[in-house]
Amino acid sequence: MNPVVNDPVRPTRRVTLRRCGADPASLAEDEVAVEEPLEIRVDGYPVAVVMRTPGHDGELTTGFLLTERIIPSPAAIRRLEIRGDENRALVFLQDDVVLDPGRLTRHLFASSSCGLCGKATLDAVFLDIPPLAGGEAPDDRVLLEAPDALRRSQRAFEASGGLHAAGLFTFGGGLVVAREDIGRHNAVDKVVGHAAAAGIETQEHFLLVSGRVSFEIMQKALAAQIPLVAGISAPSSLAVEFARRSGQILVGFLRPPRFNRYS
Amino acid sequence: MNPVVNDPVRPTRRVTLRRCGADPASLAEDEVAVEEPLEIRVDGYPVAVVMRTPGHDGELTTGFLLTERIIPSPAAIRRLEIRGDENRALVFLQDDVVLDPGRLTRHLFASSSCGLCGKATLDAVFLDIPPLAGGEAPDDRVLLEAPDALRRSQRAFEASGGLHAAGLFTFGGGLVVAREDIGRHNAVDKVVGHAAAAGIETQEHFLLVSGRVSFEIMQKALAAQIPLVAGISAPSSLAVEFARRSGQILVGFLRPPRFNRYS
Repeated sequence: MNPVVNDPVRPTRRVTLRRCGADPASLAEDEVAVEEPLEIRVDGYPVAVVMRTPGHDGELTTGFLLTERIIPSPAAIRRLEIRGDENRALVFLQDDVVLDPGRLTRHLFASSSCGLCGKATLDAVFLDIPPLAGGEAPDDRVLLEAPDALRRSQRAFEASGGLHAAGLFTFGGGLVVAREDIGRHNAVDKVVGHAAAAGIETQEHFLLVSGRVSFEIMQKALAAQIPLVAGISAPSSLAVEFARRSGQILVGFLRPPRFNRYS
Repeated sequence: MNPVVNDPVRPTRRVTLRRCGADPASLAEDEVAVEEPLEIRVDGYPVAVVMRTPGHDGELTTGFLLTERIIPSPAAIRRLEIRGDENRALVFLQDDVVLDPGRLTRHLFASSSCGLCGKATLDAVFLDIPPLAGGEAPDDRVLLEAPDALRRSQRAFEASGGLHAAGLFTFGGGLVVAREDIGRHNAVDKVVGHAAAAGIETQEHFLLVSGRVSFEIMQKALAAQIPLVAGISAPSSLAVEFARRSGQILVGFLRPPRFNRYS
């Protein structure tokens, strides 16, 4: 058993391993991405346990509550207490905000009598979050330069190869915040939580994720009112349908010198 | 809006898009991975909605129930009805098997008074599933040839670039089953469900996943009694800790001519 260095803010951890294959096997050490549970409690009620990479837990908590539509705005949070040694986030809402415990799973169980389908799933989301008005896109050049800027910010990934990244950029090309996590959705929630806590208006900003774009990523971005989502890799069919109804721009395979625009 | 061809067994779907970047933008068509919800009901109780790529829904359902430890064995299922047009799987258990509705989330909420941590999370899993005895590994050569065999089976990935794959191999190197899905965990559940339905004993088999290895992948493999898990990419810290306690072998960065062995 390797010695586990329990530093909650280091995103990677050193482990021993055996290198096998072409050469004679040898013992070595390498960094792996840290994965630990975080329990999120709202007014004492446990709403979720998220497997995440420690660090920026307050942003993750705020972003998760916003993008899962458990709270309507960051102002709903009266107090946020991160107990890093317990892997627990304690959230206390304003007196006039009432937590609906069914909220977390309701949109997942919004099955209609005709059965569940992509369209019914999208309908349920758009009941909660109105589509955006649509608008301008940034210059192609700005989009094409973003992957490199995100990668330069990904120090932990270089060390472990095991972390997803998400970044929020202005339409002018400025990187506002980048976050990494073992979970794709967590990286997005950390970015959204950072923007919310900093009071950043997300119009004329875009979200770049290091991997694929799924329905859930689009939904989280819409909850954060981000008008453009770009992925280095492929979008799913439901992400494309989502973007065509939400008024968001969806960019995939953002790999200079080219990208695809799906909406 | 592109015309949506609602063929539930095709894993990819054709969409129109705009190619941008170096050349003048042009309209094109390409395949994207299909993502649709599947609601799993057990004896009428909705236990989960899984965002998945349609196809092999029965395997996905059986595998999900097994690896999430909602049922103890495939024999617990009396009848399984897939309603493809409704995206619904109806599971009916044997009369002597009682569904515990809290089962699905219990291990996620197994927080101890000292707080949650990786160790507490693992303890909760091992209460349900005893560690394996440990045993032999296949030849290095067998492991090194597996990624190529899995990739050859990934026809949908080639078309869309958006699907994860999982494959079950014998220690002799034979590919027993390979499945693809927009969700990493779903691909594993489909493989496990296939093996369970076919009555395949998983000793002396290994699981290969196309991406990273997280805690949840290890947990699902242990529930299926698979003694070795290999990933093309990096493992997480909790996957490494898991393997060192579960008696499973964990292989990462399986990229010929080399791989890393973490346990």
